[in-house]
Amino acid sequence: MTTTVGVGMVGHAFMGRAHSQAWRSVGPFFGPPLTPVMTALAGRSAERAGAAAASLGWASVETDWKELLRRDDVQIVDICTPGDTHAEIAVAALDAGKHVLCEKPLGNTVAEAEAMAAAAERARARGVRSMIGFNYRRVPAVTLARTLVDEGRIGTVRHIRAQYLQDWLADPRAPFTWRLDRDRAGSGALGDIASHIVDTAQFITGQSLVGVSALLDTFVLERPLPGGGGTARVTVDDAALFIARTDGGALATFEATRFATGRKNALRIEVSGSSGALAFDLESLNELWFHDARDGAAESGFRRIIVTEPVHPYAGRWWPPGHILGYEHTFTHQIADLLAAIAGGTDPSPSFADGLQVQRVLAAVAASAAAKRWVDVEGSE
Amino acid sequence: MTTTVGVGMVGHAFMGRAHSQAWRSVGPFFGPPLTPVMTALAGRSAERAGAAAASLGWASVETDWKELLRRDDVQIVDICTPGDTHAEIAVAALDAGKHVLCEKPLGNTVAEAEAMAAAAERARARGVRSMIGFNYRRVPAVTLARTLVDEGRIGTVRHIRAQYLQDWLADPRAPFTWRLDRDRAGSGALGDIASHIVDTAQFITGQSLVGVSALLDTFVLERPLPGGGGTARVTVDDAALFIARTDGGALATFEATRFATGRKNALRIEVSGSSGALAFDLESLNELWFHDARDGAAESGFRRIIVTEPVHPYAGRWWPPGHILGYEHTFTHQIADLLAAIAGGTDPSPSFADGLQVQRVLAAVAASAAAKRWVDVEGSE
Amino acid sequence: MTTTVGVGMVGHAFMGRAHSQAWRSVGPFFGPPLTPVMTALAGRSAERAGAAAASLGWASVETDWKELLRRDDVQIVDICTPGDTHAEIAVAALDAGKHVLCEKPLGNTVAEAEAMAAAAERARARGVRSMIGFNYRRVPAVTLARTLVDEGRIGTVRHIRAQYLQDWLADPRAPFTWRLDRDRAGSGALGDIASHIVDTAQFITGQSLVGVSALLDTFVLERPLPGGGGTARVTVDDAALFIARTDGGALATFEATRFATGRKNALRIEVSGSSGALAFDLESLNELWFHDARDGAAESGFRRIIVTEPVHPYAGRWWPPGHILGYEHTFTHQIADLLAAIAGGTDPSPSFADGLQVQRVLAAVAASAAAKRWVDVEGSE
Amino acid sequence: MTTTVGVGMVGHAFMGRAHSQAWRSVGPFFGPPLTPVMTALAGRSAERAGAAAASLGWASVETDWKELLRRDDVQIVDICTPGDTHAEIAVAALDAGKHVLCEKPLGNTVAEAEAMAAAAERARARGVRSMIGFNYRRVPAVTLARTLVDEGRIGTVRHIRAQYLQDWLADPRAPFTWRLDRDRAGSGALGDIASHIVDTAQFITGQSLVGVSALLDTFVLERPLPGGGGTARVTVDDAALFIARTDGGALATFEATRFATGRKNALRIEVSGSSGALAFDLESLNELWFHDARDGAAESGFRRIIVTEPVHPYAGRWWPPGHILGYEHTFTHQIADLLAAIAGGTDPSPSFADGLQVQRVLAAVAASAAAKRWVDVEGSE
Repeated sequence: MTTTVGVGMVGHAFMGRAHSQAWRSVGPFFGPPLTPVMTALAGRSAERAGAAAASLGWASVETDWKELLRRDDVQIVDICTPGDTHAEIAVAALDAGKHVLCEKPLGNTVAEAEAMAAAAERARARGVRSMIGFNYRRVPAVTLARTLVDEGRIGTVRHIRAQYLQDWLADPRAPFTWRLDRDRAGSGALGDIASHIVDTAQFITGQSLVGVSALLDTFVLERPLPGGGGTARVTVDDAALFIARTDGGALATFEATRFATGRKNALRIEVSGSSGALAFDLESLNELWFHDARDGAAESGFRRIIVTEPVHPYAGRWWPPGHILGYEHTFTHQIADLLAAIAGGTDPSPSFADGLQVQRVLAAVAASAAAKRWVDVEGSE
Repeated sequence: MTTTVGVGMVGHAFMGRAHSQAWRSVGPFFGPPLTPVMTALAGRSAERAGAAAASLGWASVETDWKELLRRDDVQIVDICTPGDTHAEIAVAALDAGKHVLCEKPLGNTVAEAEAMAAAAERARARGVRSMIGFNYRRVPAVTLARTLVDEGRIGTVRHIRAQYLQDWLADPRAPFTWRLDRDRAGSGALGDIASHIVDTAQFITGQSLVGVSALLDTFVLERPLPGGGGTARVTVDDAALFIARTDGGALATFEATRFATGRKNALRIEVSGSSGALAFDLESLNELWFHDARDGAAESGFRRIIVTEPVHPYAGRWWPPGHILGYEHTFTHQIADLLAAIAGGTDPSPSFADGLQVQRVLAAVAASAAAKRWVDVEGSE
Repeated sequence: MTTTVGVGMVGHAFMGRAHSQAWRSVGPFFGPPLTPVMTALAGRSAERAGAAAASLGWASVETDWKELLRRDDVQIVDICTPGDTHAEIAVAALDAGKHVLCEKPLGNTVAEAEAMAAAAERARARGVRSMIGFNYRRVPAVTLARTLVDEGRIGTVRHIRAQYLQDWLADPRAPFTWRLDRDRAGSGALGDIASHIVDTAQFITGQSLVGVSALLDTFVLERPLPGGGGTARVTVDDAALFIARTDGGALATFEATRFATGRKNALRIEVSGSSGALAFDLESLNELWFHDARDGAAESGFRRIIVTEPVHPYAGRWWPPGHILGYEHTFTHQIADLLAAIAGGTDPSPSFADGLQVQRVLAAVAASAAAKRWVDVEGSE
Repeated sequence: MTTTVGVGMVGHAFMGRAHSQAWRSVGPFFGPPLTPVMTALAGRSAERAGAAAASLGWASVETDWKELLRRDDVQIVDICTPGDTHAEIAVAALDAGKHVLCEKPLGNTVAEAEAMAAAAERARARGVRSMIGFNYRRVPAVTLARTLVDEGRIGTVRHIRAQYLQDWLADPRAPFTWRLDRDRAGSGALGDIASHIVDTAQFITGQSLVGVSALLDTFVLERPLPGGGGTARVTVDDAALFIARTDGGALATFEATRFATGRKNALRIEVSGSSGALAFDLESLNELWFHDARDGAAESGFRRIIVTEPVHPYAGRWWPPGHILGYEHTFTHQIADLLAAIAGGTDPSPSFADGLQVQRVLAAVAASAAAKRWVDVEGSE
């Protein structure tokens, strides 16, 4: 007989919708040891939060997220708000003894992230778990990539080439949003999407970036306000480019941009090793390309592995081979792993410490772009 | 204020799981005019049906599907059982005034399908709706393909080349299942997957097959029983190939097989028109390839359209551009359209009559393979 | 020290240009045991043949191909004229003791092809060699495909799916040419391009077609004469489709058309075996896709082999890995193999007998399309 | 009536073979205004040069390249030797009044390149022409890309992402060659292949790099000598990575490496503009991917243009549509353009000045990698 666990979610925009679908789906497909109950949704507007709760399947509503921490029927707090609010909510929730799942980036600054990682460490001592939502680790193809690297199937990692390409700002007439405001978003492409490729690259290779040289730029400085009535100043980066070294001696290129016309959500990563290579593109989420140099010169080539077999990570829980999965499934996988960790009394991964380390890489990128020189990542040696 | 509609589902295997996810997801993402309530699940074993209902989210269980027809809190019957049971359940449900969604193939024989189509016609006169589950019509890329053909974007259709390639029987040691037993399944690749490419080809082009010349074959005649203990005789086709003409003067090739090593679920269709062409592969289900000859010789090429934009069919209900959808979403789209039709008092599509026409094509294929000659499709002129 | 061999070529249109480039290139890249000398070019118009000879590098000109047979400095006759002239020239040349390379199709009828195969057999007894120009056998990827099948790498062949897709007639306004006149061309897509996929499929699999069921059709019956001034009647097929069985128990689909909008020269072939599969597209002629089921479910996928390694067929003679080859190289490979066979006193492949067998398949296709029933290929049992 | 022009080539290794095939092919396919005569081949060893001349079709041999400058029957000197010899030969040839085609890189240092550009400028005043062999500009797809950018089809260029990926050093046991010796080669991946992507990127966009931040590294420091007997020290870079800005405000990433396992000759470039984008991969040399944002959200996607139509650059000179070209054709195009320029009394492109500018970019890359900071490209403002 399984026991249940109450969940309280903060925020109900894009990420809130994605997380809700995952909370709803994890039971039927993963049969987790703890059955999640969608207990409460927190949002500032009672009206909008109420409508969202009704649509998304949450049993009650709070207009102050702090109420979630006081509720005995909430054991997990799921933070889906913009980055500037993460630190306050997460620290309070952990200190209140709630397990926390927090969307990325961990915080908007290294200081925030440090406070959060410290809170996670304190909570951990009391058996309270925390996880940062780098959901792309749970794309089956990405998990498989990590496994192949772990098993030595590509040998020593030499190169990482990572891109996160979107195009929703390519048109100068695209309207202003909170994501272009430094106060709310912290940064632009850097925190929003470069964070994903940094985490994915480090996850797949098992290596950490130790130094970077970077460029940040904003192509369009003023954008029309939605609904007309003037323009607003863009205060974040449109694009972030950097080259890097890892602690394993690999060389890496990174590019994150919202100006890559025709690329909608192309998180692309290729890893070259001494005896093999891997390539992935989020726009073809079910595919992993694997080159095994041991196949021999006459027969080797990048294999298009369709990662939907029962032996593949997560895939056997869903449909027969070749029946493809989508974006939202990554969140279900994330929650399945979180619930298993909570039930098993282990720490889920990625941790807040992992999130802090990514934040430090992003800070080094920003510092390098400003100083026009190589900058080491804090905490790496 | 929306009203609710009670749903009773029969069967809880592969299709039952897929439909359950769709009933669960249609509310949050489509906000349908009728809110479905997952009222009852019917299955012969109380134990297994009970476990399935608990896992999949159905509120009650019936061990006899006929009970669903007697319940006032069930207005829709969703049939997810093997093909040999479709006719009896569907006819009874329609005659009982329940709206019916029936998985494909409509029946295992033309006679069954005729009875079902007749029942649907009777029910229709009383405002009772019916729909056959050719879910691939609701892949956004397939719906878009139909729209482009409708709008004349590829001109006169000249060629259809359609394949449904799987490989789960390629290994002679793959075990026997009910799908290889003519009494249960009716046919093999023909009814299971050729039916899908016939429907998809006719849907996209708006044309019907009028005659065929076919080959059916069974490569492996005996297979081990699962769990050991001898073998069973395969009484259905492993592969079905045919060439065909349409009522619009196009020529078509079709191949459906479970022996296409390395192809997992490759429903591939290419349509060549006098001024354009379209290509689709279910293994890359978010992509439609479109060649527009009017682009001019210097610049024309097959465009890889990622069918995830707000302007694309269904896509705007889910995630931002480039965030890909999977197999199961097609079922949600199907139910969204069914609910809209019921609420709007219109007939959903594809109808049982459409299912009957596909059944007649499959019968012509079987007859042609047996007679080794061209056979016209019944009802076409 | 190598000896030389004199070559006389008949015809100087498209095929003549391709063969000339091959005669010119075979020396530097293949260092053949016999060095070819481009001795004489035969063409009916002295003026046009003279200009062609000057441009293409032929040392002399004949306005009657029969003169080539009388010249002592010509040992090889290379026939690059339309199909209706092949039989007369080839039989005369062989009987005159000249080695013959003849473009495909062997003849325009089975009777012509039989006469040619008989002449080849007579000549063979005297050490005179003959070869039919199915040049696509010499695409390195195609040769590699054959090797992999030969070595058992895909197991028992189950399926062949072959297409030759072009689009130069898709526009109804495309002008009339001799290729649309049955008297000159013999047939349309059938002899011109279906012949290639029949040969390629049989070559790769090592199996022969034993029976077919076919459709032939002509979409556009009248076309404008080039230069204006009325129209001419199209008397050949625009498209040829057929399904077939092989002597090895495989099932095959074939489609050859000039109406596949957006496909320029897409000779595509996929072969499914019990333990692997191969796929090829002439528009990407340096690539062979190979699926090895023995890679295991977790890691198998179609490998994109770039067939330019030194270990690959022919490739080592040209450039370093990854430096791609083009269409014309196939002709150089063909001639290199022909010269090696002549020098070695062995029979080159494909033989005129191979060409005759393909002709019989095409005849069966035409007969099946006319009779609307299955037709066995003559000579197969 | 065309006149002839005598050619003397220096060097007969890889590049010499490629150039010879081009000199041989340009006549039949391009009918140039000047007919080249393959007059003399210079190589230090009489024996090896003699064998090469016989195989490659050169009429005579010189063991001292300076003899070519004295011959009246040589009007063009084609330099195919390693980079450390370019400056001396090219300057002497130009000063002797010979037109010069020089392989890339122009020289091994900026100083050499400056001397060569100065010599070219002097010669130009006397009607003597010079050209550097960045042959990839003459890939039809690359030329088409440039045309599309020129015509404004992708709007303002925002991003360049360029890679040149090879893998022939990925295996630590791959043997030492002169290309790994700084004295002969000048640099490693930087001069050999990064030079190509710098030139191609600048050519396509019409913009110049103005500053860079770079990483150079050598993964394997000792390699076995070919034939055994110890090892030699690698004194050049295995990989070169840099980010850059252009004078048009675009941001760029560059990676050149010989350690990208599974990538054989993957010169890949993608250019994102405000209203379109282009992508190219040399391993698929006949294809250009073009995204036109003006196609509209519902229908836009990267188009796979097969660049073999008569309207495409160079393509109409060769074969019908869809009959693909290879690596070596780029050299024929280069020579066709060179001969047209000489005959027309205009300057061919790319010039030695262009080669010098690329050399300055490479020097900035090396300086940046050494100093670990941003470095401006000399001569840009």
